[in-house]
Amino acid sequence: MTTYKDSTLEEIDRAANAAEEASDAFRGLSGAKVAELLNGMADAIMDLGDALLETASRESSLPIPRLTGERLRTCNQLRMFGDIARAGTFKRSSIDTAIPDRKPLPKPDLRRTALPIGPVAVWAASNFPLAYSVAGGDTASALAAQCPVVLKTNPAHPETSAMTAGALRKAIAALALPAGIFGTVDGKSPEVSVALARHPAIKAGAFTGSLRGGRALFDAACSRPDPIPFFAEMGSVNPVFLLPGALAERGEAIAEGLTQSVNLGVGQFCTCPGLVIASQAGTFAEQLRKRFSGASAGTMLTSYIAANFRSGAQKLGALPGVTATVGAAAGGESQVQPQLFETQSSNFFAHEEFLHEVFGPATVLVHCGAAAELERVAQHLDGSLTATIHGTPDDLRANRGLLRILERKVGRIIFNGYPTGLEVCPSTQHGGPYPATTDPRFTSVGSAAIDRFLRYICYQDFPVEFLPQELQS
Amino acid sequence: MTTYKDSTLEEIDRAANAAEEASDAFRGLSGAKVAELLNGMADAIMDLGDALLETASRESSLPIPRLTGERLRTCNQLRMFGDIARAGTFKRSSIDTAIPDRKPLPKPDLRRTALPIGPVAVWAASNFPLAYSVAGGDTASALAAQCPVVLKTNPAHPETSAMTAGALRKAIAALALPAGIFGTVDGKSPEVSVALARHPAIKAGAFTGSLRGGRALFDAACSRPDPIPFFAEMGSVNPVFLLPGALAERGEAIAEGLTQSVNLGVGQFCTCPGLVIASQAGTFAEQLRKRFSGASAGTMLTSYIAANFRSGAQKLGALPGVTATVGAAAGGESQVQPQLFETQSSNFFAHEEFLHEVFGPATVLVHCGAAAELERVAQHLDGSLTATIHGTPDDLRANRGLLRILERKVGRIIFNGYPTGLEVCPSTQHGGPYPATTDPRFTSVGSAAIDRFLRYICYQDFPVEFLPQELQS
Repeated sequence: MTTYKDSTLEEIDRAANAAEEASDAFRGLSGAKVAELLNGMADAIMDLGDALLETASRESSLPIPRLTGERLRTCNQLRMFGDIARAGTFKRSSIDTAIPDRKPLPKPDLRRTALPIGPVAVWAASNFPLAYSVAGGDTASALAAQCPVVLKTNPAHPETSAMTAGALRKAIAALALPAGIFGTVDGKSPEVSVALARHPAIKAGAFTGSLRGGRALFDAACSRPDPIPFFAEMGSVNPVFLLPGALAERGEAIAEGLTQSVNLGVGQFCTCPGLVIASQAGTFAEQLRKRFSGASAGTMLTSYIAANFRSGAQKLGALPGVTATVGAAAGGESQVQPQLFETQSSNFFAHEEFLHEVFGPATVLVHCGAAAELERVAQHLDGSLTATIHGTPDDLRANRGLLRILERKVGRIIFNGYPTGLEVCPSTQHGGPYPATTDPRFTSVGSAAIDRFLRYICYQDFPVEFLPQELQS
Repeated sequence: MTTYKDSTLEEIDRAANAAEEASDAFRGLSGAKVAELLNGMADAIMDLGDALLETASRESSLPIPRLTGERLRTCNQLRMFGDIARAGTFKRSSIDTAIPDRKPLPKPDLRRTALPIGPVAVWAASNFPLAYSVAGGDTASALAAQCPVVLKTNPAHPETSAMTAGALRKAIAALALPAGIFGTVDGKSPEVSVALARHPAIKAGAFTGSLRGGRALFDAACSRPDPIPFFAEMGSVNPVFLLPGALAERGEAIAEGLTQSVNLGVGQFCTCPGLVIASQAGTFAEQLRKRFSGASAGTMLTSYIAANFRSGAQKLGALPGVTATVGAAAGGESQVQPQLFETQSSNFFAHEEFLHEVFGPATVLVHCGAAAELERVAQHLDGSLTATIHGTPDDLRANRGLLRILERKVGRIIFNGYPTGLEVCPSTQHGGPYPATTDPRFTSVGSAAIDRFLRYICYQDFPVEFLPQELQS
């Protein structure tokens, strides 16, 4: 593909209206048929073979092994949501039968179930060209809810998007379902995204990307004449707290693990640990510096993202009271150097720049005095997708207050691990208080991601034959 | 109480901060303790005795028998949410245990549960001085979620509010819990409400009232530096569709039932049927007119609400192509006459005024030609809390398309009944697409009302002793 250009307003209108027109037919399918569709989509993606991986690698600079794993995750997500659609328990159906002779008034028959909220607009992320893009978790969970999807492709990987969209269309056509179940629009400019978010046929939105982009679309969705739910996952700083016992026992291993986690995928994960907080971390800091200074440069997804990283890192490094350790020199406009910044907690409180994510392979080590200082730092943080604590059980017992504070700030809390590497399963929570997301009641990864796209309806005193299957007995 | 005046910004700040400060202690309680608190609140309300009913009746003009029933509902709601808190299943806890030897990567231990979202601001409604006010469903469900509540009292019943708030405080004190678990602010002016909705300590909002008020607060909540979820239930037109078989079989009974439903509580229910749609309804229309012309005048909650009703009814009556039948003459500035308007469907499509609720004892009968016209009217409607269909099973079979359309528009759909008289149980859905509410994924009545105030958290690889009780096995 040689050109990627903004869809016109007419094209956006056509895609959204096609989704709207497909809604009733899609809603009418059985869960088993939806599962067949989602499995067919996974099969069609696999059928694209190595060409998909090679295209994605060329467009994203991500290595083939990483993309092979990501493709597996993408297909697993589609199949998992297929299983969810087939089981139907996500509808939380409930039945309260009538009590005709109740006094003072008879009790009617009430039955509640979930319906698809309607056509969903999805914004593809740049950093997972497969698993958070055209056929990613947002698409899979919306389709499992029987909501047609209009997906705004990410300009960072247009050919990958076109190939994947073709696979999804093929799976839809193979079952002779309406094409409007899945459509795409293209756009670099905010106008395309805003037009999609405000289109009357669109009933919910899901976005993965930057705080600025996510907030702008959230605002567009909320200020519609008829506001719609809009879930934006906007990344975060993902603080890591290091307690003394853990540092004493395995400081060197933590330095190694953290360096890997920060640099994994050139730091291009929503869960990249951007803040490390420790007291009495002299030796550990030395070990961390040693590793960062030896770390390789990496090629980011786009030159634009690399330029943003350099500018963000430069701002952090230029703050008073900040020292920097940089990795191997970078060449080319998409290449960047890993960066480790260090500062004292007193200085951390003085500059709000430390609270904001710098997307890429950088982290800030905040040196604290007494252990109580860790709690003060935790209190000061904004919402985050994750927080991590490294400690011995004794450390944790001595720091229950820290745990209590972090529970209020994040969607997932990790003990003696690293935030990167997110498991997709029923207990996954990939969300968190603002600015991590626009609504901490939902997750964009894991089975519960489907909840974003469901509305509920109660049938009162209807004869059984007119009720949805799941309410008939 | 002789004066009801706006709380100052300092008072709002104090109430919100007290809620914030009580959050951790409240979150730390067991479900059993929360149940004890909610039951204690119900007991304390009953302990107020007839004085509460008499005060509420004096302030609202609602009769004692109605308020006696409403008090029972209020206490039942508190106890029901107590049972929900004790059972704890609302947390939807899930456990995925580790698979350490999984290839290529070990699977960590992930456990997900719900936490209180944080302090909740609640706006009391005027039309239920007990069941949707200080100790109403929003308060009960937020407290069951272990969220402290700051409630903005409704100026229509200040003494009732003060008495009820006193009962809640007494129940909190009896268990030696922090007073910040429940606080109130007073306000007639939008400034008080906006300041509360935008207070940094407030993490979610719940409102029952007018579209204008609800939308203004939703906008305030969404435009915060850190947006918060805001659920507003803003009433609706609650269309009632009359199919030919039902009209033929029991047109007179439906005319009687509808007249009662429209006039119940002087039409001051969110679920009051404001629109009746029928084809070939000549005889039925005569019967309905007869009943409306004989209907008694009623005293509304306040003179302001009565004036709004008169002005809304006047606008409808003044539209071209509208005929009106009015009930008994009203005396006094809070008294109003029941009003039945009639128009042809062609005229219905021509005036958007028909789509908007007129709060009070009025309804519009829309005359359709062919039965297919009913579907066109349904398509034209905005979101509503309820829709009702009267028909024989044969009618319904012949009108499956109408049912499909209405399912997309409303939160509750009733067959051969009336929308007023809402059962509170697990299968209740009191919500619906905008403008009925600001989020069709939630309900403000019934067990699921608690979902509005929960956020989710995932614990990864934590030793059992540090996990919440429900995740320990």
